[in-house]
Amino acid sequence: MDRWPARVSIREVGPRDGLQNEQPVPTADKVRLIEALGATGVGRIEAVSFVHPKAIPQMADADEVWGSIKRFPEVRYSALVPNVRGAQRALDARFTEVEVVVSASDTHNRRNINRSTDESLDDIAALVEMLHGAGATAEVIIATSFGCPYEGDVDPGRVAAIVDRVVAHGADRVAFGDTTGMATPTRVRDVVSRVRERHSEVPMLLHFHNTRGTALANILIALELGVTEFDASVGGLGGCPYAPGATGNVATEEVVHMLHDMGIDTGIDLEKMIDAARLAQEIVGRELPSGVLRAGPRTRLVG
Amino acid sequence: MDRWPARVSIREVGPRDGLQNEQPVPTADKVRLIEALGATGVGRIEAVSFVHPKAIPQMADADEVWGSIKRFPEVRYSALVPNVRGAQRALDARFTEVEVVVSASDTHNRRNINRSTDESLDDIAALVEMLHGAGATAEVIIATSFGCPYEGDVDPGRVAAIVDRVVAHGADRVAFGDTTGMATPTRVRDVVSRVRERHSEVPMLLHFHNTRGTALANILIALELGVTEFDASVGGLGGCPYAPGATGNVATEEVVHMLHDMGIDTGIDLEKMIDAARLAQEIVGRELPSGVLRAGPRTRLVG
Repeated sequence: MDRWPARVSIREVGPRDGLQNEQPVPTADKVRLIEALGATGVGRIEAVSFVHPKAIPQMADADEVWGSIKRFPEVRYSALVPNVRGAQRALDARFTEVEVVVSASDTHNRRNINRSTDESLDDIAALVEMLHGAGATAEVIIATSFGCPYEGDVDPGRVAAIVDRVVAHGADRVAFGDTTGMATPTRVRDVVSRVRERHSEVPMLLHFHNTRGTALANILIALELGVTEFDASVGGLGGCPYAPGATGNVATEEVVHMLHDMGIDTGIDLEKMIDAARLAQEIVGRELPSGVLRAGPRTRLVG
Repeated sequence: MDRWPARVSIREVGPRDGLQNEQPVPTADKVRLIEALGATGVGRIEAVSFVHPKAIPQMADADEVWGSIKRFPEVRYSALVPNVRGAQRALDARFTEVEVVVSASDTHNRRNINRSTDESLDDIAALVEMLHGAGATAEVIIATSFGCPYEGDVDPGRVAAIVDRVVAHGADRVAFGDTTGMATPTRVRDVVSRVRERHSEVPMLLHFHNTRGTALANILIALELGVTEFDASVGGLGGCPYAPGATGNVATEEVVHMLHDMGIDTGIDLEKMIDAARLAQEIVGRELPSGVLRAGPRTRLVG
């Protein structure tokens, strides 16, 4: 437990991963939210995705959102892209950090984009080359790294083998997605250890969903394993809007609240992040599944 | 992480701690719930409390509930009592395991029962003697062990000093309550280490609330410190009914779900516990804050 890192980097994914999984909201609200997040001290924000508007109407205004926000010079903004066309849009919009996704589960990958994991990895090789050629970095997000809702357990060896390939393709960073909240401390330990054995140098980011309550436990064990980069979504934005109370992404303010009480620096002003979560809740018009938003931090005493 | 124990003992507190913090429910429903829980394989159930019905109307039918349930011989049942009168009722009802509470925070103790922590500890000395004289064991629950909603931080040294006194009074077990969900991994580490230094032999039980999302992270670090006894409440019963979506006690099925995936035995049949959570939800008539109840275990795949 002395192994906890002194500092952790959080990437705020509410504006993209969060809002993409909520009912569509107005462009102006997205701009307000991204600006509020930029003012919290968070180091990174996943701002938009460049996807086909018919596939994901929630992100149809990506160019407008990105063109409208006041950008904070100390924040690193990124965009997610599904393919060459999306990557070109991201580059045209002058993003310098771009993410692409592949699923560790073949079934999951096929159901999402009708390609095998292997075929997607070939596509990603070309995308990485294209992004690098334009001076942008490429992060590969490996979805279902801790379990697949169709296949069940995913072999950490398979995840590690995917990392081998994307690293060979030149990926600058690798993220591991707990796409449907199937991660537990054991699964995290197994994937992180297996990947670290072979790729000690590649920046590694973990993305947890709190679907089954384990998100902060997963982060705790990851900290003990030396992981220092995590995704989180303000207010827990991104639960499926059709399942009341369902939780998707772990809430940024819950992560920050725990880390700060553990003496781990995030650079984030917790009160400002809670204000941003309140704004997010107002924007989506439903109660968000964040205990720290609802109850306040542990330091907020009863008078 | 190799320090995880092979087996953990869970005490189910939904029927008492849970229902005491919900709107009153019919006696027959309580009986149904306790019987369903007894069939899950859980080793211990906190069944009722013997409190004044004007103070806590939810527990007014404690004698009737206890007299009506089908008891499972392999389950240890316990009752909570606030004072000598309650202890006598518990003994008259033939409980052999009884719990008493004191708050580590003087302000919290005074606001609850208008006595200082010291005065309560004197009362507890007499209660322990009375219970032992009648052949029952006495567990002392130390509320606000990880923080007080009025005072803020609670010094782990103060918690340890309270343990000194209750152990001197002959308490058979000590429980540490995270009464308003203020525990974090650091707080758990500090309290457990401090107490263990001085009382390595006293059985120790931890009771977490998931108010700010940290419950399973707290359990994870406690496991690493060698703690093997935890309270949990089926479905997360016990959130304040006036705050929609508020979470109180950590949900038993969320704890079991994580532990089993970590290879830790609890003796509990997870599917039966989820069934009991569904029953609890039906009884209180509101959505309970349990991800595993809502989403199912990670092994429940999409067809």
